[in-house]
Amino acid sequence: MNGNVIVGQSGGPTAVINSSLAGVFKTAKDRGAKKIYGMCNGIKGLLDEKYVDLTEKLDSTMAIDLLKRTPASALGSCRYKLPEVSEGKEIYERIFEILKKLDVKFFFYIGGNDSMDTIKKLSEYANLVKSDIRFMGVPKTIDNDLAVTDHTPGYGSAAKFIAATMKEIIRDGHVYDSPTISIVEIMGRNAGWLTAAAALAKSDDCEGVDLIYLPEKVFDVDHFISKINELSKKGKSIVVAVSEGVKVADGRFVFELAEHVEFVDAFGHKQMSGTAKFLANKITAVLGLKARAIELSTLQRCAAHMTSRTDITEAYNVGGAAVKAAFEGESGKVVVIKRVSDDPYMVITETADVNKIANIEKKIPLEWITDDDYVTQELIHYIHPLIQAELSPIMVDGLPRHLNLTL
Amino acid sequence: MNGNVIVGQSGGPTAVINSSLAGVFKTAKDRGAKKIYGMCNGIKGLLDEKYVDLTEKLDSTMAIDLLKRTPASALGSCRYKLPEVSEGKEIYERIFEILKKLDVKFFFYIGGNDSMDTIKKLSEYANLVKSDIRFMGVPKTIDNDLAVTDHTPGYGSAAKFIAATMKEIIRDGHVYDSPTISIVEIMGRNAGWLTAAAALAKSDDCEGVDLIYLPEKVFDVDHFISKINELSKKGKSIVVAVSEGVKVADGRFVFELAEHVEFVDAFGHKQMSGTAKFLANKITAVLGLKARAIELSTLQRCAAHMTSRTDITEAYNVGGAAVKAAFEGESGKVVVIKRVSDDPYMVITETADVNKIANIEKKIPLEWITDDDYVTQELIHYIHPLIQAELSPIMVDGLPRHLNLTL
Repeated sequence: MNGNVIVGQSGGPTAVINSSLAGVFKTAKDRGAKKIYGMCNGIKGLLDEKYVDLTEKLDSTMAIDLLKRTPASALGSCRYKLPEVSEGKEIYERIFEILKKLDVKFFFYIGGNDSMDTIKKLSEYANLVKSDIRFMGVPKTIDNDLAVTDHTPGYGSAAKFIAATMKEIIRDGHVYDSPTISIVEIMGRNAGWLTAAAALAKSDDCEGVDLIYLPEKVFDVDHFISKINELSKKGKSIVVAVSEGVKVADGRFVFELAEHVEFVDAFGHKQMSGTAKFLANKITAVLGLKARAIELSTLQRCAAHMTSRTDITEAYNVGGAAVKAAFEGESGKVVVIKRVSDDPYMVITETADVNKIANIEKKIPLEWITDDDYVTQELIHYIHPLIQAELSPIMVDGLPRHLNLTL
Repeated sequence: MNGNVIVGQSGGPTAVINSSLAGVFKTAKDRGAKKIYGMCNGIKGLLDEKYVDLTEKLDSTMAIDLLKRTPASALGSCRYKLPEVSEGKEIYERIFEILKKLDVKFFFYIGGNDSMDTIKKLSEYANLVKSDIRFMGVPKTIDNDLAVTDHTPGYGSAAKFIAATMKEIIRDGHVYDSPTISIVEIMGRNAGWLTAAAALAKSDDCEGVDLIYLPEKVFDVDHFISKINELSKKGKSIVVAVSEGVKVADGRFVFELAEHVEFVDAFGHKQMSGTAKFLANKITAVLGLKARAIELSTLQRCAAHMTSRTDITEAYNVGGAAVKAAFEGESGKVVVIKRVSDDPYMVITETADVNKIANIEKKIPLEWITDDDYVTQELIHYIHPLIQAELSPIMVDGLPRHLNLTL
């Protein structure tokens, strides 16, 4: 193999982003790469010449198996957008100089649609300066909002955690004889894929959530309140899944509605109530019913103790497929997942032009959202295979063991 | 066996309270009980003659194994305090009339220190009216605040979930090169046992949390801010575990400090910020640093997908031991856990007078809290065995399966 490999992670972490790192590393090693470097904190760290030699850090099959089970970006991440070449040529020169020094011929970047912009720009610059370095994108995001690919690694595990947790919250919510109302806020500013996963809670042994609100559809606060009022008359507990990103007709986020009042704490700092908190308070204020707000928060993107085996394997495979494609000559591409069969569920990987993916958001088709504030069977059917099977954590001393590259 | 059995659940649910229910049921059945009834929504439901025949509902070993893995009170719960006999004799007469109708001779109540008040009063009334019905308490609470017993079933699993989740949040917090500050709010209004479990995150593969604040010690906001300021200068991410119940010197909860400002939303409803949210805002306001608040919320008491095998087995055993004791003639007692050896960890069950447990809260000894805002090795050593080993969820269609008695 002619030349070395470098790999970086970028954007928000997921529970399986390190499985993709493991896939890049293992495949590159198996296919004869001599040195495999890891950028510390993505392209931003690379610019400061911060990198590690992964061949030293990942020197056993145990280390690789632990890496697959470690949440968040093991190499560190960044949110850094490269300037246009015309506006920052020296940054590109600097990056290529560092890559030359390390004899890197293959560059892999694991990230979402923003991070794929880095692959787009670097591969364009490589063309411009006639460099033979190959640049490949490896997709990840819990948000599942990448174009072209059937779905994105990281989503299946987050969806599984959300569905499992909703089942537990529903059981908890049905405990008392006086009905409770739980408003569960789920991540997703613009796309509702994560919130939609709450629908999977409904099964033989679970009542499921009662209402689902996604950012793809305009949120009507009055309609919501009347829905809750209607359901509350049945005398049963209510569980609502709502995306943090739902917006009202004038384009404001629901969590911004509270801004209208002077909402400052003792230190003059303006407070922003969460979406669920705002809706729970509104229910209490208008209907006089007790409602609790639950934010799944950071847990939904880092719950490595509850991953989908389907997802973690696909995350590994897209890493490996990126190496294969680059080693065979491709550049300026992103590995995507193509679903070749729904039942039985079967997928293959392909590569797609990075221009079709960088900076583009894929949302839920409106026809998959029902008029009675729920989602269709088609949407459930789409998510269902992505949460199947488990990869057991390696439990040491009572807790899931991780691989910590920074200690 | 002379007479039937009835069992109820009361107070806040836990991830393993149903394992105690399984222990009561299975042991009573094995020891020859003919009918085993379950009160729906505890003593409150029983007063309305709401009960189920558990011998019908739990008719297979599979059902019992699913029940052990089902979070929240499968029979439903209540928060209901019996009046003193002198103030509500008719309620006692009504209960004993119902028990007579069902030919119940053994009454088991699974709950915390408030619920044990029910066992106390019913057994006292039984003495008063010379009834031969036996009343036994089965301990449960995630809060671990019951007196006499070494620890309380439900605590170990919540502690394990908290420690595992803290490890994941710590990994997530260390992702970016610019340090982040995470304030994680953990349950416990008066006792800090749950928050202290965050200390278990520190291990070979994890930096651990930086600061731990428990309600047993007065919280000083200025001191907290100066601690954060000091730590932030090291340029590393910070993770803080704080109990929802921390109080300042004048006795107010920290979350009440925000009340001083007119804190009303668009509907005139007074808002209460959480403890973590208040502290995160304060950090931003005073130090100009970005801080995020994470509430573990309901998840810590219902995460049945991540239970401690030690805890779930002990939960089962205290249920069984209560039956054994009652069948052998005891009444007005609570089953407690006695740690007979620390290393290796070994426990036995005993019974204790309900008067020593009902309405009493056990807090963390002050000498287990350090001056540098952390906890001692003694406290870690105490919790450590309680989170060991796992009971794998039974995964069906990608999600943990529960036993739903109410569907």
